[in-house]
Amino acid sequence: MSTHPDLPALVRDVAACVRDIGCQLWGWEIESVDYKGNDPQDLVSNLDRRVQAALATRLQALCPAGFYAEEKDNRPIEGLTWIVDPIDGTTNFVSRKRDFAISVALYDGSEPLLGVVFDVERGDLYSAIKGGGAYLNGLALDRPVDRPLPACILEMSIGTLRNLMRRTDAGLLNISREVRATRAMGCGSLAICQIATGRTQLYLSSRLRPWDHAAARVILEELGGVLVPLFPSAQPGVDPFLSGAPLPLLCAASQALADDIIHRYFSPVKDN
Amino acid sequence: MSTHPDLPALVRDVAACVRDIGCQLWGWEIESVDYKGNDPQDLVSNLDRRVQAALATRLQALCPAGFYAEEKDNRPIEGLTWIVDPIDGTTNFVSRKRDFAISVALYDGSEPLLGVVFDVERGDLYSAIKGGGAYLNGLALDRPVDRPLPACILEMSIGTLRNLMRRTDAGLLNISREVRATRAMGCGSLAICQIATGRTQLYLSSRLRPWDHAAARVILEELGGVLVPLFPSAQPGVDPFLSGAPLPLLCAASQALADDIIHRYFSPVKDN
Repeated sequence: MSTHPDLPALVRDVAACVRDIGCQLWGWEIESVDYKGNDPQDLVSNLDRRVQAALATRLQALCPAGFYAEEKDNRPIEGLTWIVDPIDGTTNFVSRKRDFAISVALYDGSEPLLGVVFDVERGDLYSAIKGGGAYLNGLALDRPVDRPLPACILEMSIGTLRNLMRRTDAGLLNISREVRATRAMGCGSLAICQIATGRTQLYLSSRLRPWDHAAARVILEELGGVLVPLFPSAQPGVDPFLSGAPLPLLCAASQALADDIIHRYFSPVKDN
Repeated sequence: MSTHPDLPALVRDVAACVRDIGCQLWGWEIESVDYKGNDPQDLVSNLDRRVQAALATRLQALCPAGFYAEEKDNRPIEGLTWIVDPIDGTTNFVSRKRDFAISVALYDGSEPLLGVVFDVERGDLYSAIKGGGAYLNGLALDRPVDRPLPACILEMSIGTLRNLMRRTDAGLLNISREVRATRAMGCGSLAICQIATGRTQLYLSSRLRPWDHAAARVILEELGGVLVPLFPSAQPGVDPFLSGAPLPLLCAASQALADDIIHRYFSPVKDN
């Protein structure tokens, strides 16, 4: 373990930095939108790279650390490391100009230290230090109220459903009848933060990467929420959250809700 | 056909009325949330009824007409008729306090005359008069840019997918791979208005009722968009949009896009 920086001061500085870059983003021009790995569902713009470069410089000035980010080749996470998604929800950014976020976390190896998620279009900034509670625009968030499954809103896209149905039984389609409603906003970090605000209670994704969940995880866990990998890790002994492989993940407002979903749809019996 | 009122003046008055009631709504208290017909996925609050009562009085004062609305027993639509959803997206209203709308249309029998949709939380007001263009907060909206299917965003919930898969082939699950992304916001009128703004290009719903689409339809059709019932009407000779039965509907930014989806997933060959 490294010597930790002054986290309360650091999270304020990171929040100010992320707000500043997010506001500048509105003045920057989208000049190119490319497919990553020829996948027409995975976009990257010149502004993803520009935001990342701006964050790299400014975060290193705030606290020297490794830098693990979406738009670069990364080395395994060791010691103090910034984990950054410069624009989470690039498709929303280029096609809708809403529901995208800048996500910045600081980890010490596998240990989360702080997380900041900025909903750029709404101007909403979510932040947390491990053990220090979670905040929205500087105001403390309360733990989400417990709700039974039929009163829950589930964030899950049809793409996620399709991917997960290949790995579990087809009955997963019925999950839409067990909850109050399903929604899909297309931004993993904000989807997790919506559990923190009580707007969503459950979120299923078939392929989150470390930069998608690293910061929002700190926020949600501070409020009693949980993040549960859906299938046993392919690499025993490696932290599934930080292995770098796309992670099928369940996020829930409480352990009890997560257990309920895992039991109904992802227990080993159902894998056969 | 009735004598039409002065539509340009009327749409301004309707817009002002809907904005006013939407703003008042924030000060009103949710005292009860009930299930309609014992369906835990179909909510109604005391405020749906309060907004509807306020609209009934004020719209009748603006233009005497029939009143067809979500929270009442309705007679078939004949002659000049207000078609009203007091809160479209009640689940979003009570659970998330965003992505809900007040929707008001004036029809003359089957003929749409005007539509107003107010996104209460964002304060965005969409409006149109038949033949007079469509507006967002008083500014004219442009026709959406043509996009090929792989560059389109499809609004469609998992519940809709499940319902439609019962009536067409199971391959509908693959639609999530043919578009850039799927989203689900849980408010039909706003989903249609997002096609008008270019944020979405396609919207599939398995069960829209007249109050869900009546106003947004005027807005979308003014911009070259289309609304296409997915299956032949169960009541030949009855306007499928206004029959009152839940309507499986495709909304698209253009006829070409709609034809493409119908051909791929809803042509008669696939029904067998």
